[in-house]
Amino acid sequence: MTPAPRTSRQAARLVAGSPAIAQAHFRAEALPYHPRLRPDGWLNLGTAENRLVQDLHEGTPPRPLTARDTRYAPLYGTPELRAHIARHLADLGGGPVDPEDLVLVAGATAALDVAATALCDPGQAIVIPTPCYGAFDTDLAGRSGARLLPAPPDARDGHSLSVPAVDRTLTEARRDGVDVRAVALASPANPTGQVHAPADLRDLAEAAAHHGVDIVADEIYAGSVFGPLPFTSLRTVAADPARIHTVWGFAKDFGLPGFKAGVLHTTDPDTRAAARALAYFAPVSTHTQAHLTDLLADPARVRHFHAENRRRLGASHARATALLDAFGIPCAPAQAGCSLWADLAAWLPCPGFTGERRLWQEILDRTHVSILPGEAFHAPRPGWFRVCHSLDAALVEEALTRLGRLLTTKGAPHVDAPHPAAAPAGPARPLV
Amino acid sequence: MTPAPRTSRQAARLVAGSPAIAQAHFRAEALPYHPRLRPDGWLNLGTAENRLVQDLHEGTPPRPLTARDTRYAPLYGTPELRAHIARHLADLGGGPVDPEDLVLVAGATAALDVAATALCDPGQAIVIPTPCYGAFDTDLAGRSGARLLPAPPDARDGHSLSVPAVDRTLTEARRDGVDVRAVALASPANPTGQVHAPADLRDLAEAAAHHGVDIVADEIYAGSVFGPLPFTSLRTVAADPARIHTVWGFAKDFGLPGFKAGVLHTTDPDTRAAARALAYFAPVSTHTQAHLTDLLADPARVRHFHAENRRRLGASHARATALLDAFGIPCAPAQAGCSLWADLAAWLPCPGFTGERRLWQEILDRTHVSILPGEAFHAPRPGWFRVCHSLDAALVEEALTRLGRLLTTKGAPHVDAPHPAAAPAGPARPLV
Repeated sequence: MTPAPRTSRQAARLVAGSPAIAQAHFRAEALPYHPRLRPDGWLNLGTAENRLVQDLHEGTPPRPLTARDTRYAPLYGTPELRAHIARHLADLGGGPVDPEDLVLVAGATAALDVAATALCDPGQAIVIPTPCYGAFDTDLAGRSGARLLPAPPDARDGHSLSVPAVDRTLTEARRDGVDVRAVALASPANPTGQVHAPADLRDLAEAAAHHGVDIVADEIYAGSVFGPLPFTSLRTVAADPARIHTVWGFAKDFGLPGFKAGVLHTTDPDTRAAARALAYFAPVSTHTQAHLTDLLADPARVRHFHAENRRRLGASHARATALLDAFGIPCAPAQAGCSLWADLAAWLPCPGFTGERRLWQEILDRTHVSILPGEAFHAPRPGWFRVCHSLDAALVEEALTRLGRLLTTKGAPHVDAPHPAAAPAGPARPLV
Repeated sequence: MTPAPRTSRQAARLVAGSPAIAQAHFRAEALPYHPRLRPDGWLNLGTAENRLVQDLHEGTPPRPLTARDTRYAPLYGTPELRAHIARHLADLGGGPVDPEDLVLVAGATAALDVAATALCDPGQAIVIPTPCYGAFDTDLAGRSGARLLPAPPDARDGHSLSVPAVDRTLTEARRDGVDVRAVALASPANPTGQVHAPADLRDLAEAAAHHGVDIVADEIYAGSVFGPLPFTSLRTVAADPARIHTVWGFAKDFGLPGFKAGVLHTTDPDTRAAARALAYFAPVSTHTQAHLTDLLADPARVRHFHAENRRRLGASHARATALLDAFGIPCAPAQAGCSLWADLAAWLPCPGFTGERRLWQEILDRTHVSILPGEAFHAPRPGWFRVCHSLDAALVEEALTRLGRLLTTKGAPHVDAPHPAAAPAGPARPLV
């Protein structure tokens, strides 16, 4: 008999709920595709990693290590970096930001954990419009002990934010005696890449205020909007801004996911005090903070960086949707971020999420392309997949061609397979 | 009426228990002493920050930013850095270390939190031999929800590790129905700077095994031993090494506290899985990891660094004890680390920890010297203070001279004030 683990129940729960996204990432990265060296290698379109702007960092002069960079600093961020981030967030979303309202921690994940833990005790709930960012389960609930209540939209809502669904979920939770503390969402949205309209965000803030709950808005894609609708920060639309807590980070807009630098903005003094206390457990290295301070110190360079980022994300999104379209794969066009939301429902081998899981496995096994199934994002209906396109165009083309060919050979629903110039049709390449 | 805070009870508890050490640090750093510009400024001998080796980092060539340094990596540390740390820990404490048993997180604080959370559910207990590292209260209990049970030594135990005290506390806890999961200690010790004898560590491991509890050993000063007794890692002495979880970091031995890079070593598969899952919330920037990889990559340089660190810490400790001695202030000589343990019991204005608190306040107000009272370290008897000496010799001399003069003017117990050459006697300088 295997002895029972001696670890805590809270840790065992976390291990059991380890995010599928992170696991898929490292599996797909272990044996990467190379056109010559490993033509049957893996292509990772599962991770929302923005690799389109790495060259823009190459000009950054390395900063010699100073004594100051090595020493203790306030564990919620150096005043210099917070001042720069405050200015940057104001530029992105409108309205001034006080650096004292910013709490820097080791990534947006940590910032979400800090927000959830500051607001919730174990058993209290957070309402999440779905589909939602797949790691919300871990980020918001993993350490805080909060539980997530999905607010699925009606089919007629399409891919827009459905405030009635949130309102209905809040009403039902109250009826059922569930102690809801907050609504949490990604804005711009992930996985769908939707930019929420200011009117929708205002309605959401009103609904939350009506039910007496706070809002946690993950605005990590604030600077990655390439569609016509500009980004609006939730902090600018609420009647009581102290009830809005926003998260941002350097991972997406600056393509620096490894730096694990995220920030929580909150004007509520109690939440801020709690967040500062929690930041003690997840600080960012002063070494990296010094580098990020240098990065933000040149406004002209930041403006150029962002313009390039938006232009490249938009072009990459356009190429990816054109490829999918050429194979007859429908998708919901995105306006922001690294991913799009593709509809493979017509190819499910059997109904429901069982069919989605089987199709996902088949795509992995037969194409070595990692894309993530909608179930990982609490998609309300089966068959949707998140496709990340923010990497080298040739890799995206190879991956979507493999995917398109597989679906074409499966024959449904498009028996007349398209033959795009970029992706000549043919049997799926056998992969070992 | 002030409205009740809307933050969680778990966050409010953390805010209320915010570590005194961190608060004292930033207060003392705000208006620092300068011989010419601010002669009445603050001198911070309260923080165990090793500033004696900063010049040794200045030769480090800054590393140009590569794409790899910016990207996602395993959130418990890159394989490269963990391999280097494994080799380094083996060099420090004897016996090989498997890099797969290392979980890198954002500082030793985070590593202690990870260990405690992996082992304990809220309400379970950790036994702590006292005096102990003052931040254990927050690091081990703040997020995990564990409670700490002090194991105070008998007066006759002196400053050595008292295994009988730990054994007695474990026995009493079982009798009282307390669910103890671990014993935690700093080894080498903090605040006393004692290097624990291998026999004591073996006895401790046996006692813990007898009671069926794990050991969490904070070995952050492993490379900062300047006394004759070499460091022995607890991982090398236990019959069942899987029950020993050790913590190390770059803050002390390498004088890089701002880098917030700590590591948990555990060979227990369940604890390791739990620690990796928890590391997701407190990762270290790949940028800083790359720098630390470079730092450890040159064994000859690391050996020189450590030899210098030990030599400088030893010299600094000798200077500090000589100054205290010249003023007739007794202290327990240290063999490791950044601090010594000074006995000001004779100067307490009234008995008990009330007297200690009043003396502490008087020292702060009248000398602007920050040293921390024993109560912050769960000292079993009042009157002891932790004095950190690992900073510029002139600053230590200024601080201890101010302290010595104040105590001299207080007149008890040494009415004949000493007149050391380094610290001419005279009235305490009035401070604003």
